[in-house]
Amino acid sequence: MSRRIAILGGTGPAGMGLALRWARAGEAVVIGSRSAERAQEAAAKIRERAGAGANIKGDTNAVACAASDLVVMTVPFEGQAAFLKELKASFQPNAILVDATVPLAASVGGRATRTLGVWQGSAAQQAAELVPKGVRVVAAFHNASAELMNGDEPVECDVLVCSDDPEATKVVVELAAKIPGIRGIDAGRLENARIIEEITALLIGLNIRHKGHSGIRITGLPANAYRPL
Amino acid sequence: MSRRIAILGGTGPAGMGLALRWARAGEAVVIGSRSAERAQEAAAKIRERAGAGANIKGDTNAVACAASDLVVMTVPFEGQAAFLKELKASFQPNAILVDATVPLAASVGGRATRTLGVWQGSAAQQAAELVPKGVRVVAAFHNASAELMNGDEPVECDVLVCSDDPEATKVVVELAAKIPGIRGIDAGRLENARIIEEITALLIGLNIRHKGHSGIRITGLPANAYRPL
Repeated sequence: MSRRIAILGGTGPAGMGLALRWARAGEAVVIGSRSAERAQEAAAKIRERAGAGANIKGDTNAVACAASDLVVMTVPFEGQAAFLKELKASFQPNAILVDATVPLAASVGGRATRTLGVWQGSAAQQAAELVPKGVRVVAAFHNASAELMNGDEPVECDVLVCSDDPEATKVVVELAAKIPGIRGIDAGRLENARIIEEITALLIGLNIRHKGHSGIRITGLPANAYRPL
Repeated sequence: MSRRIAILGGTGPAGMGLALRWARAGEAVVIGSRSAERAQEAAAKIRERAGAGANIKGDTNAVACAASDLVVMTVPFEGQAAFLKELKASFQPNAILVDATVPLAASVGGRATRTLGVWQGSAAQQAAELVPKGVRVVAAFHNASAELMNGDEPVECDVLVCSDDPEATKVVVELAAKIPGIRGIDAGRLENARIIEEITALLIGLNIRHKGHSGIRITGLPANAYRPL
């Protein structure tokens, strides 16, 4: 594949987990960070785990963003808006921006088991308002445990993918399915992100209550709703 | 068991599914309806399917409510508040009220794939405000497909149960687990119902998009988080 996936704000657990899994799946990945040096250190760690053949590097968020038409953003909600405003000039015209932001109340000193109301309906819809026209925002990867993503086992979780661009949804559904254990499911329009984001708060509550690393599976759909089948 | 489960507003698909499944599990059930006659007809239908030994009858909502300390309510959101106000005098002092209401936008002519905002946070919390003091509201059974509940196969769905009374939660978690295929999970405080209710709208959207009868499974928790194990 000639594409390179940029994972912005990618040195945290969520970004590192995605980078590790995609590097192992043979995808070319660039981790973005404020500091190119930190991003390169993170990339080196991934290479150590994914093998010397892993196609991964690190750079600043702006450079990583400009170099890729498939950009994933894993930043805390409190940083999301400023982050997107700063990167506005860096996006390729028709880039796909995958947003995994969850508006946890922890962002303002509250609990990670609760969410904040976002005026636009969801963090993903806020992102859609902030990106340049033409950039297609896709919400995904909210519910997969970062702990498990950073491990070596298959991840027992479905990734619900939503956006207002069916082609972009398809790309991300297939990208999700490259992670062992994960199935990608088209969950409709971007507005549905509000529910998918909230599920994360519920799962965090279950993790605390029952001491686990929870995820979700959707049951009862025909086989062709799930990628891979 | 000496208890009898009252299923109020129980002649619709959601109530009928629960009645069928619990009657088959050997529980004593009374279906409640505005009309005792309609409730008795519904009970007769359940008996036909669950077998002559099924312990099921029908009565008015008020009589059914007064006769049981475990009351399940399956009414559309637009009827929930008036329903509870009307039944206020009928509750036993420490009854458990299981609320499965989902505030779908369909209640006001909108889509079943969207929800309404409820001032209290969720339909279940609205219920908690409307019942007599001492009645313990438990939110559960939002996400199990009524279609599948009314069938004969195990139901591939976890039932997330939340309330502010751990003992009431335990009763309902165990009641959920009596339905083949279903696992009951303690999902914490009643305020979490807002997320569990919204998941239903997401599942309805998935059903429309992918033509199925979807449900959810929670993965990644230790075995003792699930009843039955």
